[in-house]
This record gives sequence, C-alpha cells and structure tokens, in this order.
Amino acid sequence: MEESLARVRADVQAELDRVIDALPAGELADAMRYAVQGGKRLRAFLVMESARLHGVADAAALPVAAAIEALHAYSLVHDDLPAMDDDDLRRGLPTVHVRWSEATAILAGDALQTLAFQLLADDRIGPSDARLRLVGAMARAAGARGMVWGQALDIAAETAGAPPDLDAIKMLQGGKTGALIRFAATAGPLIAGDDPAALDRYAEALGLAFQIADDILDVTGDEAVTGKRVGKDADARKATFVSLLGLSGAQAEARRLVAVSEAALADYGGAARNLHDLARFVIERDT
Amino acid sequence: MEESLARVRADVQAELDRVIDALPAGELADAMRYAVQGGKRLRAFLVMESARLHGVADAAALPVAAAIEALHAYSLVHDDLPAMDDDDLRRGLPTVHVRWSEATAILAGDALQTLAFQLLADDRIGPSDARLRLVGAMARAAGARGMVWGQALDIAAETAGAPPDLDAIKMLQGGKTGALIRFAATAGPLIAGDDPAALDRYAEALGLAFQIADDILDVTGDEAVTGKRVGKDADARKATFVSLLGLSGAQAEARRLVAVSEAALADYGGAARNLHDLARFVIERDT
Repeated sequence: MEESLARVRADVQAELDRVIDALPAGELADAMRYAVQGGKRLRAFLVMESARLHGVADAAALPVAAAIEALHAYSLVHDDLPAMDDDDLRRGLPTVHVRWSEATAILAGDALQTLAFQLLADDRIGPSDARLRLVGAMARAAGARGMVWGQALDIAAETAGAPPDLDAIKMLQGGKTGALIRFAATAGPLIAGDDPAALDRYAEALGLAFQIADDILDVTGDEAVTGKRVGKDADARKATFVSLLGLSGAQAEARRLVAVSEAALADYGGAARNLHDLARFVIERDT
Repeated sequence: MEESLARVRADVQAELDRVIDALPAGELADAMRYAVQGGKRLRAFLVMESARLHGVADAAALPVAAAIEALHAYSLVHDDLPAMDDDDLRRGLPTVHVRWSEATAILAGDALQTLAFQLLADDRIGPSDARLRLVGAMARAAGARGMVWGQALDIAAETAGAPPDLDAIKMLQGGKTGALIRFAATAGPLIAGDDPAALDRYAEALGLAFQIADDILDVTGDEAVTGKRVGKDADARKATFVSLLGLSGAQAEARRLVAVSEAALADYGGAARNLHDLARFVIERDT
C-alpha cells in the first residue's frame, strides 16, 4: 500500500500544481498552492483504488482524486479560521490565515471549492453522465447535508449547554468527515456506472474509525509527528470518542469498525488488498 | 421588463426555498435561507432571458437561475465578513455574521456555493453535455480566475500603497462582478449548444456599466432605498469609477457602455427587448 500511496501523492500533487499554476499569479494562487501541499492523501487514494476496482483508468480517475483533495484542503483552510476552530498550525506549518490573512484564507478556501467542481468537469474523466454523477454526489457530500452540515453541528456543540452524546457525535462526524470519505470511496463505481453500495459500507465504517483514531491521536499523539497541536480537544473540553468511550473503549470501537469495513470488501477478493491495508493503517497510524 | 423580472423573482425564490427546505433543519439552513432572500435577481433574469432567446424552456433554465443566485448570495455573505468588507447591513437587513455569527456566515456561504453546483447537476436542465458546460463555465467564472480573483485584487488594492488606476479597476471589477454576469447572460446558448459570443459582449459591457452605476449610487444613493450604507467607498478612500472619472465622467462612461451593450444585441432583434430594457435600467436604477 505504501508504494501505491506514494505514487498517488506524487500524481495528485502534480495535477493540483498544474491547475493552480494555470491561475493568475498572486497571493490568492500562492495561498491555494500552499493549502494543497502535503497531507496524507487518503481521500485521493480511495478514489484511485475504487477506480481501479471498477476498471477505470488511472488517468481518468486522477482529476477526481485532485478534486477531492482540493475540496478537503478548502475545508481545512476554513475550519482553521479564528471564527471556527482557530488553529495556527496545520501539517506542521502555519495555517493560511496566519501566513497571509483571514481574508486571503476565506478567498483561497472559496476558490479551492470552486476548483474542485471545475476538476470534476474535466473531460479526461469520461462520459458526461459519469462526470455529472460525480458533481451531484460531491455536492451532496460537501454541502449543507454533508461536510458543512457536520461542521455546523460541531460548532453548535461547542456552544451548547450539554456536550453531545455518542449518537450525536457519530452523526456529526458522519457529516464532517464521513460524507467526503464515502464520496471518495465510491468515485470508481460512480464513474463506471456500477453499484457503489459495498464501497459505501466500507467507507462509512472507515470514516468513523478514522475519526476515532484522530481523537485517540489528540490524546496519545506526538506533535512533532502529527504536525498539529496535541491535547487541543481536552483543553477545549470537547466531547470526543475518547471522552465518551474512554481510551481503551475508543480503541476497541475503532478496531470493530475496521472489521466492519473490511467485511464490506468481501466481493472484491484479493483485488481490494490496498483497501484492506488502508483500513488497518487508519487505526495504526501515528499521524 | 418589470413584469418578467417580478415573475423571475417569484420563480427563483420558490426554487431556492424548495432546495433549502429539503436540507436538515437548523441554524445553517436558516442562515442560507436568509441569505438568498430578496435582491434584484438581475443575474437570474439574465439566465432566463438568454435561455428564452435560445429556445430553452423556462423550466429548464430555472435551476440555472437559482444556481447563479445561490452563488451570488454566497459571495455577498463572505464579502460582508469582518475580515473582508466588514458590512453590517445588506438589502436593508443585518448581514449573516451580525444576525448569527462569523462561523455560521462562513459555513452558510460555503454551503451556498456547493448548492449552486448541485443545482447545475439538476436533470431538468437538459442533456448531460449542457449541464457540464454550465458546471465548467460557472467554475471558471466563480473561481480564482473570476469572481474570487477579483475580490482578492480588491482586498489587495485596499492595502496597497498606491490606489489602482482605471485599467486596474476595470480588471478587478471584470473579475469581481463581471465574470458572473457574463456566465448568467450566456447560460442560454451554453445550454442550447449555441455560440455565446454576442451575449458575452452584451454582458461584458453591462457588467462594467452595472459596477459604475453601483459606484455612482454609493455617492448619490439613498440608504433607505439601496438598503446599504452610502458613502462607504469615500469613507474608506477606495478608488472607484467616480473617484477616477468624476461623477459626470462616470455617468458618461456608464451611458457609453450601455450603448455598447445594446449594440451587441443587434442580431436578436425585437426578441431581446427585455435585455435592452435591462441595460438601460442598470444605469437608471436607484437601488
């Protein structure tokens, strides 16, 4: 898996650099370029692997992989803003509003969302119908019933009197991080016009396991390795899977979800080896 | 024209209410609903008129008209933020971040942009190819070579040592407001697969005339009628068409552009009557 992931990282970075280099030069393009550097590229990897499982060529899937990373980068830039999570460090570097300004961070995020949809219109992806399925699915995953909805619930939870319970956290994270991960993992069948149900089940459990692992890393992680502040959730007295389930309870739930996730891949057999590896990596990672 | 415009306003509002009412209830959906209320709906009107001129049915053009108004509303919500233009009044009402919070305004704007692209994927619009042309064109108009680029230049101009000259202002406004107006006016030919060149020329001149008229209204307008603060540009010592050309110079340039705009409609004959009316309305309006 590491080898495939490294190739995806290089390919996606080249694709993002290509489209951003084609923009008018200036602070806006600089901030966008900065925001799409680095990261694990797990969403792009999910796109490329799900494409491969459904007979979609790498060259056709690449704009979709770049699109989802542009969308993810937009969400991070906006989430880091002072009015939101107020983070000054991301991937080990100053966040966009710290490096430039709040205005530039708002605009760079806005333009990265636009760029994501522009990439889905790319004719390398295939027939118009396929691209439109992607546009519709990404819009549903990203918007006011998906990622942005989850983020709004997260913000609301911080100011609410009582902390959210486990069901509320699951719903919130299902929107905030889950929806986009499910879009990424189903991109292959969406392009090919195949049934996305199995990969959607895989991604739903994977997304939740991923978030639980994030909460665990906020407690057990090493700032030098994760590139973000550790202990932030506890400082903010934020309800997390760890605060609700305890550390070992959260670890057990993450393992259970990885098993659910892997079970959904049964019909793909050995071809889904990388997706099995990814599911296990998600809870074993230290960053 | 007033009658057609009133019908467009009602239809577009109904369409926007319909899609927003279908979202999960809460502050996010409330803020989105609030942000898409009111406004002149000139962009939606351009979509509907350009569609009619190219034989596209109203029902097919309506989701596109709603999309562009959702996109426009997102840009206003973000432009009004404290880190951007810091406006507390819009269309006579408190801006979204004043009424709710900065976080909600950022998220509502984000989700309105997503909603705009979702609306372009609507199958009522017609064949997949047509919808994809719209997605690509709106992304180019809205993003880092269009609207967001213009807004970034505008922000940069405020902090630069020397005020921008006339060419710089034209370029800035061509991005900030012009690109979206051109997308709106060419939506009809884009859906129909016809040549958009004449309507693009119409809209390019119209967009600039519209912005000059806005600058004039900032000097001569009545706050009770415009619904926004008057004299704001002068207070901010902002370079505008009025500060660069003088009031009568700006009025003359707006009239010249309206003539250019109307000349581009020649081949449409009497069928383009509403677009002629709109061009004249743009410089005669008091709001």
